[in-house]
Amino acid sequence: MLDVNKLIQGDRRTAAKIITLIENDGEGKQELLSRIYPHTGRAHVIGVTGSPGAGKSSLTDELIKQARRHNFKVGVIAVDPTSPISGGALLGDRIRMQEHALDKGVFIRSMGTRGCLGGLARATKDVVKVLDAYGCQVIIIETVGVGQSELDIMHYADTTLVVLTPGAGDHIQTIKAGIMEIADIFIINKSDLGNTKRIVTDIEQMLDMSPRYKSSWRPPVIETSTVTKDGIENLWSLIRRHFESTRSSGELRETVRNRVCMELMEMVEDELRRHLWGYLNQNGSLNGLLDDLADRKADPYTESRKLVERFLNIKNKH
Amino acid sequence: MLDVNKLIQGDRRTAAKIITLIENDGEGKQELLSRIYPHTGRAHVIGVTGSPGAGKSSLTDELIKQARRHNFKVGVIAVDPTSPISGGALLGDRIRMQEHALDKGVFIRSMGTRGCLGGLARATKDVVKVLDAYGCQVIIIETVGVGQSELDIMHYADTTLVVLTPGAGDHIQTIKAGIMEIADIFIINKSDLGNTKRIVTDIEQMLDMSPRYKSSWRPPVIETSTVTKDGIENLWSLIRRHFESTRSSGELRETVRNRVCMELMEMVEDELRRHLWGYLNQNGSLNGLLDDLADRKADPYTESRKLVERFLNIKNKH
Repeated sequence: MLDVNKLIQGDRRTAAKIITLIENDGEGKQELLSRIYPHTGRAHVIGVTGSPGAGKSSLTDELIKQARRHNFKVGVIAVDPTSPISGGALLGDRIRMQEHALDKGVFIRSMGTRGCLGGLARATKDVVKVLDAYGCQVIIIETVGVGQSELDIMHYADTTLVVLTPGAGDHIQTIKAGIMEIADIFIINKSDLGNTKRIVTDIEQMLDMSPRYKSSWRPPVIETSTVTKDGIENLWSLIRRHFESTRSSGELRETVRNRVCMELMEMVEDELRRHLWGYLNQNGSLNGLLDDLADRKADPYTESRKLVERFLNIKNKH
Repeated sequence: MLDVNKLIQGDRRTAAKIITLIENDGEGKQELLSRIYPHTGRAHVIGVTGSPGAGKSSLTDELIKQARRHNFKVGVIAVDPTSPISGGALLGDRIRMQEHALDKGVFIRSMGTRGCLGGLARATKDVVKVLDAYGCQVIIIETVGVGQSELDIMHYADTTLVVLTPGAGDHIQTIKAGIMEIADIFIINKSDLGNTKRIVTDIEQMLDMSPRYKSSWRPPVIETSTVTKDGIENLWSLIRRHFESTRSSGELRETVRNRVCMELMEMVEDELRRHLWGYLNQNGSLNGLLDDLADRKADPYTESRKLVERFLNIKNKH
């Protein structure tokens, strides 16, 4: 049995083993996580997302350095929902981050879909908790791309950074993907390439049009370069200021409560689904029903209602 | 009450009204759909997806023309999961498709997230059924971007086209998003721009490495241009050949059965969720629990299990 006390005392190998168990959906996962949970809720979770090639990894690298300079213990989760066929495309980026490998104050973990039987977003949220209990005061979640599961993950960050480049058309695509709404800070990275003015103006204009930023935190749009290091220190202090600001305004508490609610509902639905599958497998009538549905002799709208009624009624009889 | 008979007889206004009702999750939706369902399962559903700017709309336009030349009645569903803030970015593309507006044999509908209270993927699948019952023999679903909900939608197509351009790096991003696995035909569009050789080779090589294409349909990689019209007729006959091939091999039946199963499960889960929410709202203890969870006095892993047990037990007592 893995020792939660050792995790809390900061044992690195225990942390790594627990994360592997989570990724593999191993036995005892739920119990382990329920014992870890009381020791969570302290870390500042920073999400880094944005279009491919925007330099998210290099930026994460700089954020690690800033956090270490302020003596924070740092956890990094690099999420790569790569398809099973093309796996490992990001290896180069990961290798670059190995410079922190000898620093005991930095814990880096890459996560892909392959290991995560319970879904990548679910596993990532659980790993955040492990790193939180392990003592990481800053946890950076870096995601590739802008799909739905990445957006789900970002709802778990206290401060979300959306990274863009001056590159043409790039910002429009990102905005389409619904990422606009989740940004706490917009970063125009690779500012050393110049030509940043248009995208900064575009984003500021969109912020102007949106009424929701009038009262609370309005996402700043800042320029950074991981080559010249311009803007990096400014970015770090903005990230911390955002965290302090949401904490003192009570907004963070509200966010945490919503997050906890979403998470509870996800788990409740998973649990219900488990019961339902057990019922369907026992019952065995599914096969004939699927044929009838495929042949249009029955319709799923009616059958799903009947099925649920039977499922909830069957339970009555025990 | 909307008249399903009129829909089946091909009344255009009835089709449009039913689709609006579905988008708005209006009253009587389920019953209407359950009456429409027996009249579905005949259309050839073609999915068109791929990276932004690859020319999906122009290609859809050409496919409409091809289908009309073969006297098929055509339905087009343009899915645009645009964020509420930036809405309408695709208007230009849509307007271009208006040239078919006067053709009674073509029914075009754009769908965005705004109207669809039940989720865009869900609504799209229901609209496919409406157009199928309306008599469309070919239904084209065109999606923007490569997120999870687009992938979900593509599982509903009989023939899925993945559209790419010779543009640099473009293909790598698409493959990352897990789109590789769903392609029945790869299209390198804008072949008039030249420089198509590398991407064709890259995709063919990946197909070589994947064992699953050895036995059944191997996705052809073809070049098209909507400017010069090169490759368009070839594309159309490949699309039809794919449909015939999967139909005669029994693969289509298997696909339809899996699709019907997924759909039933989605509906069953929605229905269960509805019951659960009713229970939670009645019960009223959720608020205190959320506070306890936010304060780490309780953990969601344990509480979700207890909650489901209570939910299923409560039902016992009636």
